[in-house]
Amino acid sequence: MKSNKKFTRLELAEKSKEALSERGVEVKDIAEIVLFLQVKYQKDLTLECCIETVESVLEKREVSYAILTGLELDKAAENGTLDEPLLSIIKSDDALYGLDEIIPLSIVNLYGSIGFTNFGYLDKLKPGIIGELDSVKNDTVNTFIDDLVCAVAAASATRIAHSSEE
Amino acid sequence: MKSNKKFTRLELAEKSKEALSERGVEVKDIAEIVLFLQVKYQKDLTLECCIETVESVLEKREVSYAILTGLELDKAAENGTLDEPLLSIIKSDDALYGLDEIIPLSIVNLYGSIGFTNFGYLDKLKPGIIGELDSVKNDTVNTFIDDLVCAVAAASATRIAHSSEE
Amino acid sequence: MKSNKKFTRLELAEKSKEALSERGVEVKDIAEIVLFLQVKYQKDLTLECCIETVESVLEKREVSYAILTGLELDKAAENGTLDEPLLSIIKSDDALYGLDEIIPLSIVNLYGSIGFTNFGYLDKLKPGIIGELDSVKNDTVNTFIDDLVCAVAAASATRIAHSSEE
Amino acid sequence: MKSNKKFTRLELAEKSKEALSERGVEVKDIAEIVLFLQVKYQKDLTLECCIETVESVLEKREVSYAILTGLELDKAAENGTLDEPLLSIIKSDDALYGLDEIIPLSIVNLYGSIGFTNFGYLDKLKPGIIGELDSVKNDTVNTFIDDLVCAVAAASATRIAHSSEE
Repeated sequence: MKSNKKFTRLELAEKSKEALSERGVEVKDIAEIVLFLQVKYQKDLTLECCIETVESVLEKREVSYAILTGLELDKAAENGTLDEPLLSIIKSDDALYGLDEIIPLSIVNLYGSIGFTNFGYLDKLKPGIIGELDSVKNDTVNTFIDDLVCAVAAASATRIAHSSEE
Repeated sequence: MKSNKKFTRLELAEKSKEALSERGVEVKDIAEIVLFLQVKYQKDLTLECCIETVESVLEKREVSYAILTGLELDKAAENGTLDEPLLSIIKSDDALYGLDEIIPLSIVNLYGSIGFTNFGYLDKLKPGIIGELDSVKNDTVNTFIDDLVCAVAAASATRIAHSSEE
Repeated sequence: MKSNKKFTRLELAEKSKEALSERGVEVKDIAEIVLFLQVKYQKDLTLECCIETVESVLEKREVSYAILTGLELDKAAENGTLDEPLLSIIKSDDALYGLDEIIPLSIVNLYGSIGFTNFGYLDKLKPGIIGELDSVKNDTVNTFIDDLVCAVAAASATRIAHSSEE
Repeated sequence: MKSNKKFTRLELAEKSKEALSERGVEVKDIAEIVLFLQVKYQKDLTLECCIETVESVLEKREVSYAILTGLELDKAAENGTLDEPLLSIIKSDDALYGLDEIIPLSIVNLYGSIGFTNFGYLDKLKPGIIGELDSVKNDTVNTFIDDLVCAVAAASATRIAHSSEE
């Protein structure tokens, strides 16, 4: 594969953290979900360790690409710059529309299959910031962002589970 | 793609139902989980409808292949016919071993991405027969079967959600 | 899963065929690739049969969603309505950007894993319309569309392989 | 996720290299395929660099699990220790059986989606050791191993493409 990349991995990480922050999600919010998931298996796990892990997950190029693409679709739906029927589908978070799961799953995949369980669990339970994003009732479109947060949290929990073993 | 198939789709479905039944799982057990998942969105959903849907999911060739392969691995681990280190890994249901998620996810994939959420949720919550399989304490190896049941239930719920819309 | 769907499956199929046609891809173009892939295994396969199969693949709700989403991203990049850095990444078809594979793979997944091989093969070989899309040199952005065509063709070939067996 | 792991990551890598070698595949064979794939994009790429990359891919825990599981299924089919119908299906490398793609794809996934294209391409083209494995005509069962080699080679090429950019 050739490449004509213009952005480094760390520049992309910075852009994706900024994009999340503009939509109301900070690294610490995601780290709190990681702690919630993983503290039952590692009693001495700290929020600091979870923050570091979330940061390292966000520094993967593929993670930035998934986040930036999903958030652009949320914003484009919000601004009405998508054509119909996609505009209505994303705005209404249509339950049969699955791309908001497919794009984030590319994040989970990078850390191995044991993260799928946590992804699905978070997506149903909606703890912390995930539930807040889901319950916003004004014109904000949060179709992709809640699943992206689930994916980064699930990937981070997987990374902690793996590294505690090696 | 060429093929040198010796078994029809329905013969394979019969074999996979027999294999599940030998390990203690009946179609009705899976249908009860589908009902549990989906009745909150469709109040008039019946167990009969869930049974029919599970049957139709089990009749897909790829579903049979995933079930037969996963159950063979459980049985081979139980009978000690696998080499080390895989024998110990599957017998102990090692948390970092992810093939017991990967093989069932090929079932979920066939019905589209909205099933992933239910798969992960069931895998954590372990309602009904899933919890029973997981808590067996003798020499039985149930590493793959519980995830296979989660996958068939999640796929069936997705199929019901889709068909109620069309 | 609940739903607040506004479009039927067939309406979505119509919209996605229109969207492909606007970008220069007709059902027949995809059917020709299916014939190229599959005729070596089924000597009597006709273009008509391939056209019918492509039509039936395009009628799946998840397929329409993937096509509509990918084409909107191509168009948004072309129109400059995406923010940086995503705009440059999609415009330049950056080789490390993988979403243009991830979104189409959700189409391949629906027909089972044997389609992956054909997807990758088409993506490298670029026969017919795929190569034409890839070699457009003006300001057109064809980052997603070529992979979407590969995916629909690979899924259709899989469907033909399966149905010839049952 | 908890774990009751008994093997380190590097012990598993050693076991999976031994298992590949017993079936006639050496690290160098895989590295030659990586070189074939990637040298057109990086003229100065050496076989030594490809060998190092294949080694590092093989040291991932999930990669070892996929290899060990796939090779056990090949061996069990060869030894006749699987039940029917799975025994015949794996022995005949039935074209509709897709688990021999699904298990290796869990390797490709770990390095991001751009590897899918190379996986499918190798699986069709069958260069080097892949073609040799595929053409063995005695009682040897090589249903999984050729796809596992494709996956490790595709993942390694992806890793080289990414690291040349950072």
